[in-house]
Amino acid sequence: MQFLVANMSNRTVTASPAPSSYEMLGGRALTSKLLFDMVTPKSSPLGPDNKLIIAPGLLAGTRVPCSGRLSVGGISPLTGGIKEANAGGTAAHMLARIGIKAVIIEGKAPPGISYILRIHSAGAELIEDDSLSGLNNYEACKRIREKYGEKVSIILAGIASEKRFANATVAVTDPSGNPSRHAARGGLGSVMFSRGIKAVIIDVKNSDFINFKLPAQFNDLSMKWSKELIETKKVLSLYGTANLVGVINELGGLATRNFSSGKFELAENIAAEKLVSNIKSRGGNPTHACQQGCPIRCSNTYHDKNGQFLTSSLEFETIALTGSNLGIGDLDVIAQIDRFCDEFGMDTIELGCTLGVLMEAGILSFGDADGVFELIDEIRRETVLGRLIGQGVSITGKVLGVERIPSVKGQGLAAYDPRALKGTGVTYATSPMGADHTAGNCLPGRTGYRSETQKVLDTTKSEGQIELSRDMQLMHTVCDAMGLCIFVGANTDTMKKLSELLSLRFQRQVTVDDIISLARNTLLLEVEYNRRSGILESDNDLPEFFRREPLENGLTFDLDRNELQNFYKMTDATPSA
Amino acid sequence: MQFLVANMSNRTVTASPAPSSYEMLGGRALTSKLLFDMVTPKSSPLGPDNKLIIAPGLLAGTRVPCSGRLSVGGISPLTGGIKEANAGGTAAHMLARIGIKAVIIEGKAPPGISYILRIHSAGAELIEDDSLSGLNNYEACKRIREKYGEKVSIILAGIASEKRFANATVAVTDPSGNPSRHAARGGLGSVMFSRGIKAVIIDVKNSDFINFKLPAQFNDLSMKWSKELIETKKVLSLYGTANLVGVINELGGLATRNFSSGKFELAENIAAEKLVSNIKSRGGNPTHACQQGCPIRCSNTYHDKNGQFLTSSLEFETIALTGSNLGIGDLDVIAQIDRFCDEFGMDTIELGCTLGVLMEAGILSFGDADGVFELIDEIRRETVLGRLIGQGVSITGKVLGVERIPSVKGQGLAAYDPRALKGTGVTYATSPMGADHTAGNCLPGRTGYRSETQKVLDTTKSEGQIELSRDMQLMHTVCDAMGLCIFVGANTDTMKKLSELLSLRFQRQVTVDDIISLARNTLLLEVEYNRRSGILESDNDLPEFFRREPLENGLTFDLDRNELQNFYKMTDATPSA
Repeated sequence: MQFLVANMSNRTVTASPAPSSYEMLGGRALTSKLLFDMVTPKSSPLGPDNKLIIAPGLLAGTRVPCSGRLSVGGISPLTGGIKEANAGGTAAHMLARIGIKAVIIEGKAPPGISYILRIHSAGAELIEDDSLSGLNNYEACKRIREKYGEKVSIILAGIASEKRFANATVAVTDPSGNPSRHAARGGLGSVMFSRGIKAVIIDVKNSDFINFKLPAQFNDLSMKWSKELIETKKVLSLYGTANLVGVINELGGLATRNFSSGKFELAENIAAEKLVSNIKSRGGNPTHACQQGCPIRCSNTYHDKNGQFLTSSLEFETIALTGSNLGIGDLDVIAQIDRFCDEFGMDTIELGCTLGVLMEAGILSFGDADGVFELIDEIRRETVLGRLIGQGVSITGKVLGVERIPSVKGQGLAAYDPRALKGTGVTYATSPMGADHTAGNCLPGRTGYRSETQKVLDTTKSEGQIELSRDMQLMHTVCDAMGLCIFVGANTDTMKKLSELLSLRFQRQVTVDDIISLARNTLLLEVEYNRRSGILESDNDLPEFFRREPLENGLTFDLDRNELQNFYKMTDATPSA
Repeated sequence: MQFLVANMSNRTVTASPAPSSYEMLGGRALTSKLLFDMVTPKSSPLGPDNKLIIAPGLLAGTRVPCSGRLSVGGISPLTGGIKEANAGGTAAHMLARIGIKAVIIEGKAPPGISYILRIHSAGAELIEDDSLSGLNNYEACKRIREKYGEKVSIILAGIASEKRFANATVAVTDPSGNPSRHAARGGLGSVMFSRGIKAVIIDVKNSDFINFKLPAQFNDLSMKWSKELIETKKVLSLYGTANLVGVINELGGLATRNFSSGKFELAENIAAEKLVSNIKSRGGNPTHACQQGCPIRCSNTYHDKNGQFLTSSLEFETIALTGSNLGIGDLDVIAQIDRFCDEFGMDTIELGCTLGVLMEAGILSFGDADGVFELIDEIRRETVLGRLIGQGVSITGKVLGVERIPSVKGQGLAAYDPRALKGTGVTYATSPMGADHTAGNCLPGRTGYRSETQKVLDTTKSEGQIELSRDMQLMHTVCDAMGLCIFVGANTDTMKKLSELLSLRFQRQVTVDDIISLARNTLLLEVEYNRRSGILESDNDLPEFFRREPLENGLTFDLDRNELQNFYKMTDATPSA
């Protein structure tokens, strides 16, 4: 496998074999290790010394179900620390198929010129092309496909990235060609565009297919797993992640009106049944795959009232943070906000948190959809307020003098209120990524990988949540390293399957212990990188209002501060199995 | 001597003898040590766990010339790290005279209620008083004097503090009763007001005078030093710090148009001769003392064209940063900006840097005085842009996507361009306070306290500047600990005088080594506090553009990054004498 290095200071592209020390690293494990090895902490995120690192997972390019997530890493303009964000779409499998282990974009092109990095099976080149600047992501992808072919996969820095926003995403096209998948968190799009790269195009024909030497048993196991997932993930197939709106609202933990409540009185209007009903009656698709060969297909395409395609996809976080968190109970409004974010290349979670804080500050009222569209217009016109919103919830809250800012380490919270979902709260507080549910979501029913953590916990009680979050963070990191969607299940069964698959793939014994160790090393390395970036153990906490203000159900966040600070000592992290 | 603790959470004031371990600490040495001992790093600057610490210097209350500066400390809302800012005015001497070594304001009053802390020789009390909120500092002081007497000294959090601005000052009244002296840097006013304290009033009558048991020799030495200063500081007496406008412009190091140039073509219009001519022809006072008994009297009062009092005082930093740095060559405009800052309680340096970045971003043009007044109106009206300006230059620059942001550790640079005044540049880069000239200004002609650093350097050459800055930072820290204005001269002669005076004051031998050690301990403690606050050695650098872009005279900032990072190893800090 190759490292492809695009040096934008001298506009060269070089491929070279990845050193063997990186062989067992992929996805997040690889982006974080490369950042650790190559980029000095505290380098200016948009300055010449930061790098954008793109890596498929260790199982990308194979038939392992849901193994096509693409990791993107760099120093985050949002948190100032190490960042990995990942997305579905078509790019990861394509890169792996032509033997690319990582794309490293470094240096900085002269200002005012932007480039496309075109990657194909015979090599790669930089193409000067300013025609895409200022185009929305849908339009930019259309132009790219017109020029480079319908089948190319596109990794795109949107308008938000051109504007140097700290909430700018790296968009990845889905199998339908829509720029609807995003490595959304932490502003990595701005890291990409600030190098001088507007788009990476992966132009791989089926004839270029380079399979690994995989034994039949590997493919059999993969197919068997796929079939299992079809059976076990029916709720996700039918309703997508939106099924959580009802569940989490029922639990009293749905982010509502800037986390001032855990129950939204209009939850039904934005819940799964309403979503699927709207989709079906208007000709959308409630069961859509974000990557090739996904058996779960939790994505969807949503049409407007006239039956025209509006956006893809409406998912739990977007629905809650731009819906209930803003007091907005209307899926058509939410879909338009989502479409804007897809077009502009902006993180819906960070935007939702930021708009919530603007409502708290009285810039507009909760529930004011027209006001939201006016603010979106401010963003488009790049007014001072629009630019402020682009810097995310922490800075916006600080500038406006708001006390209740839902963020950790500079990054906005996902929509699970940490007072009712305490394990997820622990993850928000302790993850080196800043508040991030995908770093280790402790949803109801989840258990760890060790015998001590195999008990199902009440998410509203603190006991055992530190240990559960630690296990979940490790297993989620495993998934991120594999390029695996966490919806296959971050659990012991998955870890066992991965141990078998990796042993077959790399023709050596890879135990569950080994893969947990890989994840632990990655997490500890990220924590150390953050330490050198000024993000310390003392930052492992939630905003104080979650401890002070109870939800309707009386719950506060009451995890011990010392335990959160000492979270990464990880003395109990040895696997039991 | 007493510590006076105002606990705002339960509205109590308690005085108790300062523990003996604090005996030899005063001013900055004391505020920093108390912060280190009492406040957990990374506590939210405006949250309940931060404290505002007010301390006169170790020689306050005596006849030592210029010993009446008041140190104010806390975690800075601007830098997130440890902060001390100091100011002249009448408060420090008064506090020392009634035996108060430090005032510690902790906790937080309930929102919406603000208090006056009234301190007198018989004790202190908290007085609930919301009548001052929203009043400009001049008006607020007038009301306070009407109620509490003409002679009280006032320490005041202005409107900027009420708005939670990160550039809000703590104002201190001068001998004329004007709120024109400011512990300006780092936003400590907001730390004060967020506790619930609008003003501290020190109500000391002459009959309350409690002198220390000072030998006659002490007072003789003090008087002798005063007389010396009258003779040696005539330029400062005649022209104030404005005399530097011409000197620094001549050197090619005057901050001009957001540090894009070191020479201002309209420098003559804002230089000392013009200033003094305006003052004299309009009935102002060119030679005014900011504290009782100051023999230097570098302050001034400036009248408008109609001969009406406009502001006090116009000093070098204000003149340059709101003048040349904005392309504005008009003292009357600068005086109005200064008056606004005095009224509002806002740091002129941080505001000048911020406006420069707004001009660079194209929000207004360089030289556009009307545009500046419109922005001031935005600040008054608390628009989003106004609030943004209140957060200082780093955040403003980030939000607006500006690359050239003149700040270190979140704090804007003073007006000495570090390419032409390299020792001062070293101080900007390495001071735990963030960019701050008063932390160790290496003006032409300055030398260190060691035999190796007694050579006068060319400020435009890098050689020897690390060592000079280190010596100057130590000697400035000595001055800050004594409550001594740095204009007495941070030099070996002053250190020797201080050793004699302290020996007499405390009736024990205090050597030059001892006082340098005190300063070294303070600096190292501040560096350690910052480290725990996420401000690391790797932050010891200037913005990259100072290395990349030469001034007209070809100079760039070219100090070795490693030397800056290792600055506080201080292996060579042992005094030679």
